[in-house]
Amino acid sequence: MERIPILKMGQFLLVTIQVDLYDRLALDLEADLINAVEKNAAKGVLIDISAVSIVDSFMGRILGNIANMSRLLDAQTVVVGIQPAVAITLVELGLPLTGVRTALNVERGMELLNSLITFDDTTEEWDDDTDNDH
Amino acid sequence: MERIPILKMGQFLLVTIQVDLYDRLALDLEADLINAVEKNAAKGVLIDISAVSIVDSFMGRILGNIANMSRLLDAQTVVVGIQPAVAITLVELGLPLTGVRTALNVERGMELLNSLITFDDTTEEWDDDTDNDH
Repeated sequence: MERIPILKMGQFLLVTIQVDLYDRLALDLEADLINAVEKNAAKGVLIDISAVSIVDSFMGRILGNIANMSRLLDAQTVVVGIQPAVAITLVELGLPLTGVRTALNVERGMELLNSLITFDDTTEEWDDDTDNDH
Repeated sequence: MERIPILKMGQFLLVTIQVDLYDRLALDLEADLINAVEKNAAKGVLIDISAVSIVDSFMGRILGNIANMSRLLDAQTVVVGIQPAVAITLVELGLPLTGVRTALNVERGMELLNSLITFDDTTEEWDDDTDNDH
């Protein structure tokens, strides 16, 4: 039980965080997740933190890092299942998870990811058309 | 971090086990899962144990219990992500998870659940037709 499992679901990767993210575990998760995004050519990463009742600045930074790294590999990150108490703590700590998209639960997170990907595809097609015109 | 989160994904519930299932946690999971099956009218339960490196007879029994209870509520249970070493241990312990369906990973588990449900629906339709004839 040394590593947090990463589940592949179609184009997306799903991670549920159930344990305290101490330093090494968090860094391992970061590395494993980015490798999995590359290996599976994943278009999205869903991180469920519904079992997390306490967040600190370290965990906030890890989530931000994952989102930024994934973006470089063309994958969107959505954090789901933030408990009300956690939302309060995050804002009071001055950590509003900038750059990280959020959704209420996994289902809505999937919908959000799907819409983001569809939007991306549309944009790319539009760009292609423009290129062809010139 | 006292309870294992249960994620709703369409008609299915997904649980990833990342921590040692000591007595109370396992019983809580059993109860939470059965309540969630009833509340969401779930048709299937996916249990990912890819992070589990050691299983004992207690955990084997818990998995069997969950499968049997879910079946009473018309939901199928599939256990996914069994590590090779865990498979060896299970058989050597004489615990071949009787009554529990298994699949290699979450994606294949979802496919299996979908096929089981489709099969169920077909059977029910067939039953309905028979009833109408008489």
